[in-house]
Amino acid sequence: MVSEHGGDIYGRDIKLDFSANLNPLGMPESVKKAASAAVASSDKYPDPYCRELTKKLSDHENISAENIVCGNGADDLIYRIVHALKPRTAIIAKPTFSEYAKALGEVGCVVTELDTDDIPVGLNDGTDMLILCNPNNPTGRLIESDTLKMICEKCFENNILFLCDECFIDLSESNENRTVKRFMNDNLIVLKAFTKMYAMAGLRLGYSLFRSAELAKKVRKSGQFWSVSSVAQAAGIAALDEHEYVKRAQKIISEEREYLSGELGKFGFKVFPSDANFILFRCELPLDELLLSEGILIRNCANYSGLGEEYFRIAVRLHADNETLIKAIEKVTKWQKT
Amino acid sequence: MVSEHGGDIYGRDIKLDFSANLNPLGMPESVKKAASAAVASSDKYPDPYCRELTKKLSDHENISAENIVCGNGADDLIYRIVHALKPRTAIIAKPTFSEYAKALGEVGCVVTELDTDDIPVGLNDGTDMLILCNPNNPTGRLIESDTLKMICEKCFENNILFLCDECFIDLSESNENRTVKRFMNDNLIVLKAFTKMYAMAGLRLGYSLFRSAELAKKVRKSGQFWSVSSVAQAAGIAALDEHEYVKRAQKIISEEREYLSGELGKFGFKVFPSDANFILFRCELPLDELLLSEGILIRNCANYSGLGEEYFRIAVRLHADNETLIKAIEKVTKWQKT
Repeated sequence: MVSEHGGDIYGRDIKLDFSANLNPLGMPESVKKAASAAVASSDKYPDPYCRELTKKLSDHENISAENIVCGNGADDLIYRIVHALKPRTAIIAKPTFSEYAKALGEVGCVVTELDTDDIPVGLNDGTDMLILCNPNNPTGRLIESDTLKMICEKCFENNILFLCDECFIDLSESNENRTVKRFMNDNLIVLKAFTKMYAMAGLRLGYSLFRSAELAKKVRKSGQFWSVSSVAQAAGIAALDEHEYVKRAQKIISEEREYLSGELGKFGFKVFPSDANFILFRCELPLDELLLSEGILIRNCANYSGLGEEYFRIAVRLHADNETLIKAIEKVTKWQKT
Repeated sequence: MVSEHGGDIYGRDIKLDFSANLNPLGMPESVKKAASAAVASSDKYPDPYCRELTKKLSDHENISAENIVCGNGADDLIYRIVHALKPRTAIIAKPTFSEYAKALGEVGCVVTELDTDDIPVGLNDGTDMLILCNPNNPTGRLIESDTLKMICEKCFENNILFLCDECFIDLSESNENRTVKRFMNDNLIVLKAFTKMYAMAGLRLGYSLFRSAELAKKVRKSGQFWSVSSVAQAAGIAALDEHEYVKRAQKIISEEREYLSGELGKFGFKVFPSDANFILFRCELPLDELLLSEGILIRNCANYSGLGEEYFRIAVRLHADNETLIKAIEKVTKWQKT
C-alpha cells in the first residue's frame, strides 16, 4: 500500500524510515520525561487554553499569548483555520503538501495551483486566501526574500489571508531573516510545529501565530474545545528549553544534506537544491519499491500535484543511516542494471 | 472565569473537581503504563489508520474494522462527522452538550432544539441529521426504549442521519439493551469515548461505529491524517482489557449516585433522576461560586440551552469525595441562611 503521506511504517517491516521529515536527533530526553510524567495527570481533561504552553511560546516567539493558538499537530490548525475562515478562493503552490488543498476542499473552496514564481502575479482581489509552505514540502526550497516580500505586499494590499506554513524552517541553518514573521500583518498567519523540530510526531503538537487577536480567537473557537492532549502540552513546555539541541540539529542537517545530495547526484539522479531537512530528487527507477526490499522507506511523490512517479523525497538523517541508504541504493540500482 | 465546559481546573486552586464526568476510579494502572511506554516511540508519526486499536475495537464491539473510525477524543469525531456530511438542517435535544450545535454551526446548518419527547414528532423528510446524547448530558437520562425505537424508525424512513452519542452509556449499570446499537442501520452513527470510561480525558481518544463502510470512509478522510496520537492509541489498546474495572466502576457509580441524589434532595434541591455518572439538580443559590471557596468545582449549567443559572451538574465520584462535597454544601448553604 502506498501511503498518502510519509511516515506510515505500520503493518510492514521497515528498518529505516526516510519518508518522514523529522529531526534526526530524535525526541530529546527532557521531552520524553515530561511527556511520560504528564500521563499521571491525564485522567483529567487537558487545559483547553494550553495556558502554560502558550505563555512559554509567547516568550519564545516574542508575541502576545492572545495571538497564539495551539493545535493537535500543525495539521489540526490547517483544518481549523480553513473551517473558521471559509475562503471561497485560494491559491497554493504546485507541488506542495496535499493537506492544504484537502482542507480547502472541505469548505468548497476553489483552489488554484501555481508555481511559486507565478504566485505574486496570480494574487488579486478575487483571492481570499494564500497558503504557502516555507521551506516548501517536498521541494525543500525557502522562498526567495524578494519574492516573499512581494507576495506579502500583494496579500496585504488585496486583503488576502496569507497562511504561511513554516513547520520546517527551524530545522534549516539558513532560516535567519527568511521567516515571514518580519512582515507580520493582520492578514498573516504563521504555522509552526513541534512535530518536526523536536521529533515528537506521535504526540501531535503545533501552533499558529497571528497579529490579529480577533482572528486568533476565531481559530481558537473553531473545532473542539480540548484539541491538545495533556501529554503534548507538557512535552511542548519541556521542548522549548532545548536550545542546544536545535543548534546541533541544524548543523547536522546542513552537513548531511550536502553529503546526501552529493551521493544521490553520483547515481545520475536529478537532485533539487534544498534548504530543509529533506531532499527531492528524480530517478527513473521505482526506487521506493526497490528499497522496500532492503527495509527502507522513502517517499514516493507521485501523489504531489505537478510531480510524477519518478520523484522521490528522502529525509536527512544521521550519517550512519544516510550511509546505509546510499549503500542500499547502490545495491538495488546495480541489480537493476545487470 | 466560568468555563464553557466542565473540567477546566487550570489557573485556579481546585482541590476536588465535580465538574468533569469521568470514571471515578481514575485511569487504570495498565493504561498509564501503556501510555508512558508509548512515549518512547512517539518520535515517529502515529499509525494514521490506528490499525491495532481498530482491530481490538472490532472484537470488542463485534463490528468490522472498516466500520470503525477513531478520533482525538469523541469531540474530534463530532466535528469530522459534521464537516464530512454537511447537514443543512438538524435536530438536537434541549438541553444537551453544546458542541453539537457548535459543530453544526460551522457548516451553516440550521439547528432546531427540541425536548427529547417531542423529537419523534419533529423528525420529517426536511431533516438531514439528528444528534442525541444517550444518556443525555447534562440530564443523565437514558432515552426510553420505545422512544428510541420510534426515533430510529422515523430517521431510517426519512433518510435522516442519526448520530447517537453514547459516550456515557458504559458507565451506567442500566445500559443493557438501552444502546441504540440494536437498531444498527446505514443511517446510524454511534459515538463512544475512552475519555470518560477509562478516565483518560487528557489523552484524547474516542471512536465511532458505522454500518455503512462508505460513510465511515468519508468520516475517516475528513480532517487531518494523524488525528490520534501514538500515546492515545496505546492507551486505548490497553484499556480494552480492563473488564473488571468497568464492572467495578458501574457498581460504584450506581451506589454513589443514589447516595448523592438522596443527600442533595435533603437540601431541598430539585434533583433530576439520572442513569449516568453525573447528576443534574436545581438550587436557587450560586452554589458553584460558594463551593469554589472550598476548592470544589461543580458545573454551572447556565450555558446549556433551556437551563439557567440555577442548574448545576455534579459528577459521581468515590464515597469519600462525595461526602466531602455534601459537607461542603452543608457549610456554604448554612452560611447563606444566617
